[in-house]
Amino acid sequence: MTITAAVLTQCGQPLDIIENIRIPVLKPGQVLVKIHYTGICHSQLMEIAGARGEDRYLPHLLGHEATATVIDTGPQVTTVAPQDRVVLSWLKGSGIDAGGCVYDSPIGKLNAGAVTTFSDYSVVSENRCYRLPETVGLKEGVLFGCALPTGMGMVQNQLSLKPTNSIGVIGLGGIGMAALIAAVNCQAGLIIAIDTNEDKLALAKKMGAHVTINPNTHPAADIVAEVTHGQYLDFAVEAAGSCRTIEAAFSLINPKTGKCVFASHPPKGDKIQLDPFELICGKTIEGSWGGGADPAQLLQQVTCCDNPPLPLQQLLSDDYALNEINQAVADLQQQKVVRAVIRLPGNGD
Amino acid sequence: MTITAAVLTQCGQPLDIIENIRIPVLKPGQVLVKIHYTGICHSQLMEIAGARGEDRYLPHLLGHEATATVIDTGPQVTTVAPQDRVVLSWLKGSGIDAGGCVYDSPIGKLNAGAVTTFSDYSVVSENRCYRLPETVGLKEGVLFGCALPTGMGMVQNQLSLKPTNSIGVIGLGGIGMAALIAAVNCQAGLIIAIDTNEDKLALAKKMGAHVTINPNTHPAADIVAEVTHGQYLDFAVEAAGSCRTIEAAFSLINPKTGKCVFASHPPKGDKIQLDPFELICGKTIEGSWGGGADPAQLLQQVTCCDNPPLPLQQLLSDDYALNEINQAVADLQQQKVVRAVIRLPGNGD
Repeated sequence: MTITAAVLTQCGQPLDIIENIRIPVLKPGQVLVKIHYTGICHSQLMEIAGARGEDRYLPHLLGHEATATVIDTGPQVTTVAPQDRVVLSWLKGSGIDAGGCVYDSPIGKLNAGAVTTFSDYSVVSENRCYRLPETVGLKEGVLFGCALPTGMGMVQNQLSLKPTNSIGVIGLGGIGMAALIAAVNCQAGLIIAIDTNEDKLALAKKMGAHVTINPNTHPAADIVAEVTHGQYLDFAVEAAGSCRTIEAAFSLINPKTGKCVFASHPPKGDKIQLDPFELICGKTIEGSWGGGADPAQLLQQVTCCDNPPLPLQQLLSDDYALNEINQAVADLQQQKVVRAVIRLPGNGD
Repeated sequence: MTITAAVLTQCGQPLDIIENIRIPVLKPGQVLVKIHYTGICHSQLMEIAGARGEDRYLPHLLGHEATATVIDTGPQVTTVAPQDRVVLSWLKGSGIDAGGCVYDSPIGKLNAGAVTTFSDYSVVSENRCYRLPETVGLKEGVLFGCALPTGMGMVQNQLSLKPTNSIGVIGLGGIGMAALIAAVNCQAGLIIAIDTNEDKLALAKKMGAHVTINPNTHPAADIVAEVTHGQYLDFAVEAAGSCRTIEAAFSLINPKTGKCVFASHPPKGDKIQLDPFELICGKTIEGSWGGGADPAQLLQQVTCCDNPPLPLQQLLSDDYALNEINQAVADLQQQKVVRAVIRLPGNGD
């Protein structure tokens, strides 16, 4: 048995499909999994473009959210066992942190972090595996690896959102949509969704946004001022990917009490520029490391309490095959999909 | 009886001493006070320089921390009475907010906010007056109007400083020194004082700083890294006045858990530039509106619990007369004094 993977061999170039990658002997804490579905996150777009600075790990395996079945476990692995269906996530959970993995392949050594998912099989670290409840499908399960914990976590863990509050979500990718789901769950009094893509705005409205704004056609600040009667937003969740959108989100919150939380990880070197007096007057801003969320807890929450069920299918693209991954990357980049999903062969779903 | 005041008639120019200013009939919530001592804060340096943007109130009375005795009260004033010794502060307390005041003078109308202090008498708003305990002298009392509540408040109200923590204070003016006092009171395990003025550093050491750094002669980041064994600071309090010093303070905190609080109100238009990824990884930054402090509570705290007494005298300059105020402003600007203090005639101290 060997691995087929989409590999980043040069930044700024399409991923290369490399076959016949050898599966190494598992070290303590490592887990061999068969991947079923993997999502593509904006983080990978940045990595592929080289926007995160020099990639010292080329050729480099990518991907950080997926569903999989455990095939084999290395020594000392206790939290998962062969046959377990799991979510793979970049967020660290329980179990051993086994670090990265180096594969032998026909093009030489390939480097991988503690979790990579753009392949049919993968060797991952135990602490990046979360058992997937039976009630969650393999395709929707992908979202528990990154988008849902980050987006829902930003709202649930970083904001004290109440039904009397107003909230804006800026950027309706997987993370923004997940934040929107959490805001709707909290029954926030006013939910404003902001994006430049009309299809995403329509979906946001369907999912429970009260007001949608396309800043390309309407000035967001004017509309927010109008619908909040000049109070601006209690909270803003930003997930649109750039320093300018973080600053825009910051501009939409209440001058004395507003809080802005952002998940965007813009290109290396870009800086957020803030007026210090706005911070002195009471605005606050906070970054988000995966929403401060625990995917295990979120899987538990959703399985126990989800009524009606989260509208996860709507966030997912049609399936792409692994050898269509560069098209999937392009479609995500061009905002044709909220979350691009790759279906690996033989997923049994 | 008339008022003599130092008045800003043109930004960028010295203050003019204007005599024979008429005391208006007191409106509801207004209080006529005899000023004894007033401090000069860096905020006034900025106002005088015009660095806060266009001053629409010229000619304009200034000053926001002082001690005084109440001479007369307007209708509906209930919290202070004639003969009361009070602290005047820009921070709002109990009682009526009577807004600003307009005086008639030989050079025409003069504008004043709800509290101004660069004068022998002043009409102020009831909610800017705090009764001064007998144990606090009129000169030291000045510090309770701005420097102490802001600096001590930043530490006491905005940080969860424990004896196991490290803290840096950047900028040793009145606010920075007050933050240092609070850090010493909290028995913080490592207190680092940073300033470009050697006299202030020597004073900080005497007041309890464990390490002092002059960034003009030693790279602050290197020394902080060394003395914290690469952990950097749990907390940084910035009060050095510029966006660059706020950024420097932010650079000195622990990458995953550090918190930076700043009081600086830099020139209008200047922006803080932050790497969003540092915020994502866990650093936090917060502005400070007067340390979130209540001067009344602080006066109570210091009176009840101060053992040994706060070393307030050491923060205060020798007395300047009102007609020496431009010299006092220059000396503060050139860092010759921590807090410049004007002594008004007939203060009875």
